[in-house]
Amino acid sequence: MTETDPTESPWRQRSRRLVYQNAWVSVLHDEVDRPDGRPGIYGVIHFQNHAVAIVALDDRNRVALVGQWRYTIDAYSWELPEGGVPPDETPLVGAQRELREETGLHAGQWREIARIAVSNSVTDELGTIFLATDLEQGDASPDGTEDLRLRWVDFAEALAMIDDGRITDLLTIGALERVGRLRR
Amino acid sequence: MTETDPTESPWRQRSRRLVYQNAWVSVLHDEVDRPDGRPGIYGVIHFQNHAVAIVALDDRNRVALVGQWRYTIDAYSWELPEGGVPPDETPLVGAQRELREETGLHAGQWREIARIAVSNSVTDELGTIFLATDLEQGDASPDGTEDLRLRWVDFAEALAMIDDGRITDLLTIGALERVGRLRR
Repeated sequence: MTETDPTESPWRQRSRRLVYQNAWVSVLHDEVDRPDGRPGIYGVIHFQNHAVAIVALDDRNRVALVGQWRYTIDAYSWELPEGGVPPDETPLVGAQRELREETGLHAGQWREIARIAVSNSVTDELGTIFLATDLEQGDASPDGTEDLRLRWVDFAEALAMIDDGRITDLLTIGALERVGRLRR
Repeated sequence: MTETDPTESPWRQRSRRLVYQNAWVSVLHDEVDRPDGRPGIYGVIHFQNHAVAIVALDDRNRVALVGQWRYTIDAYSWELPEGGVPPDETPLVGAQRELREETGLHAGQWREIARIAVSNSVTDELGTIFLATDLEQGDASPDGTEDLRLRWVDFAEALAMIDDGRITDLLTIGALERVGRLRR
């Protein structure tokens, strides 16, 4: 049925104004005509980087999780290694770099398992999820905004952490649940 | 191991300035001390509403998907019924309202299957995913920003839509993959 999907936007952009910008996002205030033809506004959060998340699985079926305090939600969070990939880097190369920086891991095998829109009601954040296997441990080198702990958990335990609410990060949940199905 | 998670933020907020606000988000520019003690900035996208997504499953094992053009990513997107729940409404009541508005469906059974942080690097958007069953069809009443199509697909076909990239919305991917596992 997707062949009959609309190919043109029912939204019309009347004007666009940059209201905020930093190294990670810019905020755009648009005046628009809505799908019903009436005037409205849309605030779009534009992400400068492409999100990547990596399910790094070792040969004992354990997955690498990183723990860090998330400033935005003011809570500690156990997540997959994740990061932002700038436009001049491919998602794969960026994922390899992020995994190395956050965990010190190198992976011999990389498989792309989803391309995603992270939160499309208000942001344009796109991302790619990878499964990384054939792992080798090296040294980590997190940046100054990161205070990370690395933890290896059985894949089944990682799923249990979703079930009981110890993992709340949606990217981590989507990636782990998806890898769980693909590996069955 | 979570009992040893830090209980205090390694971040320190020095100042906070509201740089933009609309009905859906406000944008806060903070001066901070980073986890390594050095000065930095953090732009936080605060969501006014709590996100909900509903996996509505009928007695023939079909799931309700809604198609709409997403202004942010300028693309057509097939997703679960989703919406924003204001602070004066509980996530469950908001999910029931969103499902009714977007699809006309009433559900006799509601089960919460995850509480999530949607995109915690830059936003504080929290959400709840529900499984809704025992469905009854009524009339839909989408708002003016929505131009929705409703489609019933076999649950296995919905998973296939993730596999081949026809579904990219992360909330939809996480919820469908998760329900797939919980129902096995």
